[in-house]
Amino acid sequence: MTDALLGAVQQGLEIVDMGRELRVGMPQSPNHPQFWHTLPRRHGDMTRADGGSAANDMITMGTHVGTHIDALAHVSHDGKMYGDVDAAQAGVGGKYVELGVHTIEPMVRRGVLLDIAGLKGVECLDGGTEITVDDLEAAQSAASVTVDEGDVVLIRSGWGSKFPDGAPYVGGPTGVPGVGEAGARWLAERRVHAAGADTIAFERLAPGEGHALLPAHRVLLVESGIYIIEAIDLEEIAAKGWAEFTFVLVPMPIFGATGSPVRPLAVRTR
Amino acid sequence: MTDALLGAVQQGLEIVDMGRELRVGMPQSPNHPQFWHTLPRRHGDMTRADGGSAANDMITMGTHVGTHIDALAHVSHDGKMYGDVDAAQAGVGGKYVELGVHTIEPMVRRGVLLDIAGLKGVECLDGGTEITVDDLEAAQSAASVTVDEGDVVLIRSGWGSKFPDGAPYVGGPTGVPGVGEAGARWLAERRVHAAGADTIAFERLAPGEGHALLPAHRVLLVESGIYIIEAIDLEEIAAKGWAEFTFVLVPMPIFGATGSPVRPLAVRTR
Amino acid sequence: MTDALLGAVQQGLEIVDMGRELRVGMPQSPNHPQFWHTLPRRHGDMTRADGGSAANDMITMGTHVGTHIDALAHVSHDGKMYGDVDAAQAGVGGKYVELGVHTIEPMVRRGVLLDIAGLKGVECLDGGTEITVDDLEAAQSAASVTVDEGDVVLIRSGWGSKFPDGAPYVGGPTGVPGVGEAGARWLAERRVHAAGADTIAFERLAPGEGHALLPAHRVLLVESGIYIIEAIDLEEIAAKGWAEFTFVLVPMPIFGATGSPVRPLAVRTR
Amino acid sequence: MTDALLGAVQQGLEIVDMGRELRVGMPQSPNHPQFWHTLPRRHGDMTRADGGSAANDMITMGTHVGTHIDALAHVSHDGKMYGDVDAAQAGVGGKYVELGVHTIEPMVRRGVLLDIAGLKGVECLDGGTEITVDDLEAAQSAASVTVDEGDVVLIRSGWGSKFPDGAPYVGGPTGVPGVGEAGARWLAERRVHAAGADTIAFERLAPGEGHALLPAHRVLLVESGIYIIEAIDLEEIAAKGWAEFTFVLVPMPIFGATGSPVRPLAVRTR
Repeated sequence: MTDALLGAVQQGLEIVDMGRELRVGMPQSPNHPQFWHTLPRRHGDMTRADGGSAANDMITMGTHVGTHIDALAHVSHDGKMYGDVDAAQAGVGGKYVELGVHTIEPMVRRGVLLDIAGLKGVECLDGGTEITVDDLEAAQSAASVTVDEGDVVLIRSGWGSKFPDGAPYVGGPTGVPGVGEAGARWLAERRVHAAGADTIAFERLAPGEGHALLPAHRVLLVESGIYIIEAIDLEEIAAKGWAEFTFVLVPMPIFGATGSPVRPLAVRTR
Repeated sequence: MTDALLGAVQQGLEIVDMGRELRVGMPQSPNHPQFWHTLPRRHGDMTRADGGSAANDMITMGTHVGTHIDALAHVSHDGKMYGDVDAAQAGVGGKYVELGVHTIEPMVRRGVLLDIAGLKGVECLDGGTEITVDDLEAAQSAASVTVDEGDVVLIRSGWGSKFPDGAPYVGGPTGVPGVGEAGARWLAERRVHAAGADTIAFERLAPGEGHALLPAHRVLLVESGIYIIEAIDLEEIAAKGWAEFTFVLVPMPIFGATGSPVRPLAVRTR
Repeated sequence: MTDALLGAVQQGLEIVDMGRELRVGMPQSPNHPQFWHTLPRRHGDMTRADGGSAANDMITMGTHVGTHIDALAHVSHDGKMYGDVDAAQAGVGGKYVELGVHTIEPMVRRGVLLDIAGLKGVECLDGGTEITVDDLEAAQSAASVTVDEGDVVLIRSGWGSKFPDGAPYVGGPTGVPGVGEAGARWLAERRVHAAGADTIAFERLAPGEGHALLPAHRVLLVESGIYIIEAIDLEEIAAKGWAEFTFVLVPMPIFGATGSPVRPLAVRTR
Repeated sequence: MTDALLGAVQQGLEIVDMGRELRVGMPQSPNHPQFWHTLPRRHGDMTRADGGSAANDMITMGTHVGTHIDALAHVSHDGKMYGDVDAAQAGVGGKYVELGVHTIEPMVRRGVLLDIAGLKGVECLDGGTEITVDDLEAAQSAASVTVDEGDVVLIRSGWGSKFPDGAPYVGGPTGVPGVGEAGARWLAERRVHAAGADTIAFERLAPGEGHALLPAHRVLLVESGIYIIEAIDLEEIAAKGWAEFTFVLVPMPIFGATGSPVRPLAVRTR
C-alpha cells in the first residue's frame, strides 16, 4: 500500500522554482560578503592515468545572498533575540548555537501567495510604497484564499522583475516596496510559519534611507519567531495564478549561521 | 477542491533529514577547498539608533563538501563529458553553462533505500569492500522493493557512522566500501535518476589508493547522465526501516558549478 | 666591519609607507573578488586552561585589491604574454608557473617620483586627462632627476586623494587620469624595472569607457616585461618633495597568481 | 648628493628571500582557514575587442599561513593583551583597532641569526627539544655576534627543512623544537623588536601536546610587545653563514587583523 504522499507525487507534479540563480555580479546587499564562484580545477588541467578528470569549485559568500532565509539569530532588538535570548552572549564562540540557521526545520507545508502588484494591476509597486493591512486582506479576497496558522505567506510587490537590472533592485535612492510594522503584525497575529517577499529587505524601505529602520524584522524575527525569506522569484507563480500550493524549502544546515541561501519551490499535482 | 499533493501534506508528514550539518572541521576530501564559516558581524558590534542589530556570516568552501551532489560537469573521461560534450572547451569562460549544477532540476520523486549493511547484519562494511550486483538485488528482495526508472537509489554501507570521527570517514589507508563498475552498470540499466551513498566517494575505494580509479563516476555521470549524491546520512532511515519514500533534494543553483552541498529529505505521510 | 647597507640603515631611516590599508569596503575594481576580512575567533570565545587565548582571521580577496602589483601573467595581447608565451596554454593547470607573481623578485632599488599634479600646481588632474611625454619630461626637469634603467618610476596625478571617497576613485563616468600609450613607451624606452601610479588602472581611462582599452598595460607588461603597481599612496612623498629614494617592495609570493597586494616603501637616511 | 642608504643600495645588494611560497596544500596550522588560490578568469576566457585579455585570482586564507607575523592582538592572557588592554572588549566591532597587524611598522633594521642546529652540528633538532638560554648564548659566541635592543632575532632549529614534507612540519606526535619560557625571557630582556623561527609555532611544542601551552607567546606578545615571526625559511642564510644583516619585513596592512603572511628579506651589500 503506497504512502499517501508518494501516491500524490507519482500522479505527476508541477514544480515552480522560486530561487534566483547564484551568479557572480547579481544584486545583493553591500552589508554581506559578495557571492563569488570560480573553478580551481577545470577539465584539461589534470587527467588521471585512466583518462578521467574532475573539475571543481570554490565559493565565497555571505549567507544573505541570492534568495535566502533569515534565521532567528540574524536580528536582535535592545540586546535580545527571540525568546529573550541575550544576543551578545549568544555569539560568544562564533556560532549561534541556539537560534542559528541549522535549527530551521526543512519546510514542506502550505504556501499562500498574496499578489499585491496583481491586485493593483501594476507590474511593480513604486519604491517606498508600504503594503498595508488592507492590501493584504484585499489580496486574500481577490484570490479566495485565507492565511492560516503554520502557512508560509509570500507577498509579491512585483519588484522582483528588477532583479536582472542589478543595482535598481537593491533600492537605495528609490526605496523598495514592502510591508511595514502593521503588515508584519497582521502576519504575526495569524501565526504564520514564515513570510517571504520578492525584495532583498522583505519590508518597505523609504527612499534613500537604506536599512535604518527594520520594524518588520523586529516584529517577525525577534518578537514572533517567524522566519523571513527574501529575494524570492514570484513572477512565475503569479503568472500561473497560483494562490495556494505546497511550499518546499530546505535551508543549508550551516551550523551557527544567521541565514542561508535557499531555493524555495511551489509544487502542485499536475 | 484541494490539490492532491497539498492534501497529502496536510495529513501530516514525517520528514527525515539526510543532510550533514555544515561545520568547520568536518571530514571532506582534500581535493576541494575547505568549508569555513565565520561571523563578520556579531550582535553587540554595532547597534542602530532604534535598538536593532543584525549579525551576519562569511562562508568559503568547495561545493563537494558536506552532503553534496555531483553535477554532470564534475567528471569527464577521455576529454568528454555526458552527451559527448568537449570537456576542456566547456570550461572556457569559467562556468559550465551546459552541464553545471544549475541545470539539475529540484527533485521530488520516489526514493529507495538499499541497506547493504543491514542485509549483512553489520554496523558497517569494511573499508575497500565492493558492493556487488548480488548485494543490490538481495537488498531489494529483503526490503520487498524494486528499483524503477526515475527513482533515486540510496545505498547504505554503514560507513556514515564514521562521519563524526573525521579522518577515518575519508578513508585513506583503510579504503571505503561502495559499488564498483558492475554495481554502477546495474543502476544505469535501471535508468535511475540519481544514486547516492553514505560515503564521500560513492564508490568503492581500494585501501591506500585514494581516487586513482573512479569507474562508477564514469558509468553514471559521463556515460549515463545520472547524478551522484555523496556523504548522505542514511542512519536514521535505516533505523526506521524505510525502503521507499518521497525523496526531496534541491541543489543550490550555482551558475556553472560542478556540484552543490545539499540537504536531502526522505518524507512519508505520518 | 659593518656591511655598508647595514651601516646606512643604522644611521637612522625615514620610511614613507605608500600602501593603502586593506579595509572592507575600500574602493576596488569590480572585476576582482572583493576584499573581505573577518575574525572567526575573538578573544573571549575560547580560553586555554593556562589562561591564554588566540584570535584569528579569515580573508577572501582578489589579488588586484588595495595597493597592488601586476605580474606579467596578468595581461595578454593577441593570445601572447611577455616573451611570446602562449597565454591560454600557460593557464592550463590553474597556475601561471612561468610569469606568475611568485617570479617577481623583491625590490630594493632606486625609486623616482614624477609629480605631475605638483608640476601643474593642481591637487588632482581631471578624470580622463592623459599624462603626456612632455609632462613626464617636465616633471623630471622640475625635480632635477633623471629616470634611469632599472628604476621604479612613480607617477602622481593626485587622484589618490580620492581614495577615501570610495566610488569616485574607481572612475566610471569621470574617467581617470594617467599615461597613455606614448607615456608607456617613454617608460619602456628607459628600461625601467617597474612603473606605478596613484590610480587603480595606472593608465588614462576615458570618461565612461571603463577598461575597454588598456594600451599602457600592453606596452609595459606584454611587450616590455615591466611590472605595473597600482593604487599607490603618493600623497606623503609628494608633500615631502622626495624625487629620489630607495624603493622597497616585496610582493606576496603567491604561486601562479597574476598579482599581489603590496605595501611599497620609500626610504631615506634620516 | 646621494642619500647614504641609496648609495649603499646602488653598490649592489645580495637579497636572501626568507618567505615560503604561498601554495595550495602547503603545511599550516589547522586552527586557521586554509590558504587557497584559484584563477576565476584565465587568458582565453574573454578577449577585449582590441585583442587584450586579463587573468585574475581569488584567494581565501587565514592570516597565520605561510611565513607570517603575529600582531600583538593575536594573543591574550587572563583576558588582557599587551599594555593591559581588555582583550574581549578590543574585539567588539570585529577589528582589533589598537593592536592589529596594521599597526606594525615596516621593518628595515638589523637582523641576527642564531643558528642552533648549526651550533649543534645537526641538520635539524629533534621534535620537542627546548632551545635553552645556554644554546642562545653559545650561538652568539660561535657567530661573534651580540643581540642588541631593537634587533630582529631569528632562531634556526633546522626544522624548516621539513616544510616541503607537509604534515611532519606541523609537528603533532613528534612535537617541534623551539625556545621555552626561559628563552623568551632572554629575548625580552634584550628588548628585541621581533623574534622569529623556522617553525610554525615559534616555541617548543611537547610531543603530542599541540598548542596546549604557549609560554613564549605570552612572554613576547602579551608581556613585552615583541612581534613573533613564524615559518621563516632560514636554510639559505644559514648556508651562507650570515649572522648579521639588514632585515626587511613589510606586513600586509590588514586593518584590524591578528597577523599577516610576510616575506622577510635578509640583505647585504654585495
